[in-house]
Amino acid sequence: MSDFPKPLARADATAQLEALAGGAISAKALLAEHLEAIARRDAALGCFWHLDPEGAMRQAEEADQRRLAGEARPLEGLFLAVKDNIDVRGMPTTAGMATRRGRIAADDAEVVRRLRAAGAIILGKLSMHEAALGADNDNPHFGRCHNPHRLGYTPGGSSGGSGAAVAAGLVPIALGTDSMGSVRIPGAYCGVFALKPSLGLVSTRGVVPVSARLDTVGWLARSARDLRLFLPILAGFDPSCPSSREIPLAAVAPPERLLALHPQGDCEPKVREAFARALAACRSIAARIAEEALPDGEKLARWRRAGLLLCEAEMLNVHEQDWRERPDLFSDRLRSMLRFAEARSAAELARALLRIDEARCFLFERLAEAEALIMPTTPQRAFAFGAPVPADQADYTCLASLAGCPALQVPIAMEAGELPAGVQLIGRPGSEAHLIALAEALASAFEPSIHAIEPVP
Amino acid sequence: MSDFPKPLARADATAQLEALAGGAISAKALLAEHLEAIARRDAALGCFWHLDPEGAMRQAEEADQRRLAGEARPLEGLFLAVKDNIDVRGMPTTAGMATRRGRIAADDAEVVRRLRAAGAIILGKLSMHEAALGADNDNPHFGRCHNPHRLGYTPGGSSGGSGAAVAAGLVPIALGTDSMGSVRIPGAYCGVFALKPSLGLVSTRGVVPVSARLDTVGWLARSARDLRLFLPILAGFDPSCPSSREIPLAAVAPPERLLALHPQGDCEPKVREAFARALAACRSIAARIAEEALPDGEKLARWRRAGLLLCEAEMLNVHEQDWRERPDLFSDRLRSMLRFAEARSAAELARALLRIDEARCFLFERLAEAEALIMPTTPQRAFAFGAPVPADQADYTCLASLAGCPALQVPIAMEAGELPAGVQLIGRPGSEAHLIALAEALASAFEPSIHAIEPVP
Repeated sequence: MSDFPKPLARADATAQLEALAGGAISAKALLAEHLEAIARRDAALGCFWHLDPEGAMRQAEEADQRRLAGEARPLEGLFLAVKDNIDVRGMPTTAGMATRRGRIAADDAEVVRRLRAAGAIILGKLSMHEAALGADNDNPHFGRCHNPHRLGYTPGGSSGGSGAAVAAGLVPIALGTDSMGSVRIPGAYCGVFALKPSLGLVSTRGVVPVSARLDTVGWLARSARDLRLFLPILAGFDPSCPSSREIPLAAVAPPERLLALHPQGDCEPKVREAFARALAACRSIAARIAEEALPDGEKLARWRRAGLLLCEAEMLNVHEQDWRERPDLFSDRLRSMLRFAEARSAAELARALLRIDEARCFLFERLAEAEALIMPTTPQRAFAFGAPVPADQADYTCLASLAGCPALQVPIAMEAGELPAGVQLIGRPGSEAHLIALAEALASAFEPSIHAIEPVP
Repeated sequence: MSDFPKPLARADATAQLEALAGGAISAKALLAEHLEAIARRDAALGCFWHLDPEGAMRQAEEADQRRLAGEARPLEGLFLAVKDNIDVRGMPTTAGMATRRGRIAADDAEVVRRLRAAGAIILGKLSMHEAALGADNDNPHFGRCHNPHRLGYTPGGSSGGSGAAVAAGLVPIALGTDSMGSVRIPGAYCGVFALKPSLGLVSTRGVVPVSARLDTVGWLARSARDLRLFLPILAGFDPSCPSSREIPLAAVAPPERLLALHPQGDCEPKVREAFARALAACRSIAARIAEEALPDGEKLARWRRAGLLLCEAEMLNVHEQDWRERPDLFSDRLRSMLRFAEARSAAELARALLRIDEARCFLFERLAEAEALIMPTTPQRAFAFGAPVPADQADYTCLASLAGCPALQVPIAMEAGELPAGVQLIGRPGSEAHLIALAEALASAFEPSIHAIEPVP
């Protein structure tokens, strides 16, 4: 059994499933490893807001029995954790909001139902930025979540707990949500892979909404190949989910034409350096690489603010009763965002929709000429809690969100002791499998390997 | 040549193309028939706001030469006309608005470009409701368009000129636009077939926008088979059109499960009667027909108003300069609609978006159980100019608009001298060809044939 890294809880999900299938480990024993890692590290990290060891043990025993009976399902005995805005039956769903403290989900979200039906086991619920509307994960109601690479630093957000838990080896895969960049930003800051699928490919039913026009459920993992595991399980039309669409999944093809979008203006030099290295690796993969500059920061900020206003205005309705009755339970920052949106007119929101259309056309015109775009995921790496929060965290991620395109965050390792950076691949709706294959090729073309990113032990 | 009805200008487009292909008539001679019909009837009807006989003659000569040279394209020498909110190079595009009087289009809209590339010839521009935001076509700036079945009655709107021109035999097919029902309502009032395609299937680039989230270009024709002619030519992804989507067109399958949605409350008895007859005809076509009641009028009106607010708020931006500089050039009715929208908040518009989501789920949950829905197109038939304009004209059509689904209006003939009624078939995105096949089957199952609807000579 020396093929499998020890402890197995630190391996990727594909290796864990192989070990389970080969009888190298039981689900019960794997669970014990996960619980040991969580017990040892999570007090300092703050990833888990809710942990269900008893429920997980029951399900692990069932998984072992099924496997023994030859009835193992594709994800039988795989443990994962879920961002705290996604309903898991019997667990709280706070969405990081004080107003929702103690609200217990009556049903599984559609994504959780599908993963459980495939044999996966939910260990618990993960830390997130308040209301999923921000990216530092410094949650004033439920506490900070720390970056496993450097305590005292943000893991990014809003799916910060998901990024940190995967990077720290607490779980191999975690679910997050991404409306403007919320799985990709923690993926970049924590040095893990993250996939935001095409808008509408994966049901968001049972997820506390930010914007039905932008919300996606995504997943974060320690390897590119792991991203593939969930794709056939989570993709599927859901007539009761307003954003759901029938999106045919395209087959994988050899890389042909990539378009590199170079950052302008305010982009950290280390991120530029990581992007240049990724681009060099791409040259050994793709037949042709075209290059152009990203729009300037002013235009990107205008697009990002348009998406943000849409989120805020929809949230005024989603949380309407809480907002009317207990505005004091909202943080100062969230309150000022919602107050801002309250003072906007319908015509201003409609203008934001037209700006979103503009961003969409920007991306699709480029995707007509290239199978995928490559650009940095964020203009900066993780920053210290207490430092000013950059306004442009989502400037690069919002593009794929506004266009409804899939985007895949690839971690880029820096020198020892340095925080990782990230680049993202963006494709046409339904091109997820192709992006995953590209990310795998990119990861293996790297020297040093991006797998060299190891969480602080 | 006795196979072809005479005059050919009164036949459907498929018959005209057959006559052109077989040499029974030249494009020049066909044009003369169209111009004769227009000269004889349009002074009373008011369909054409702009007619280009010289340009059409030049193109007819070219079409005849191409055919002689064996280079005929699919629509070679077919004449059609276009609603006045769709750009045709060198012709005005008023959108029925006084503010746009005399604005000449520099380029063809994408749909016009595609039709011309397929050999079609644009005869001119057709009457419409002011700004495409209303359905009586009583345009205060450019004049009324009359229903060919009864002068002094509305042809419906906002593509009223398109419905009237096709019903009167002036052109076999006309382009319209449909954001909330604007090709289907005139289809129903004028007794012609009309297809509103899936949102995003057909580019709206070069069309004066109402709402990028609802606008579609549709077409009206004298036969169900004619609707098929434009489908392969107009369907196609356009990266520069914000609403454009890659929608795979489904193949035609035998009718299996239909769901009939029965009107409640305020629906004219003659429309109910027409719907009952259509449903009886369906029983000879489809294997199974389920039935349920439409939501009550209050809910339908709430959904319709949500769509309307989205249109109005987007129009405040699209026509922003005209609205600021020349509000006096807007009709009282349009002015009061835009003033209403100006006073709404972003949260109210976001609430409208959530209501649109609700309508979308209503339709998709039913389309998960049935391949197509059948329901009346409008709660009423055409009414006299001067009579109060019913508020609920778009209550039945807005459903497919809000959901982004294709919808096909089928005309139902009444007793001699009675105005026609309409039923609509609604399918999943991409099911256009199937809806057309269903409409053909339905039309041929009818006694008396719906082809018995003949325009007043």
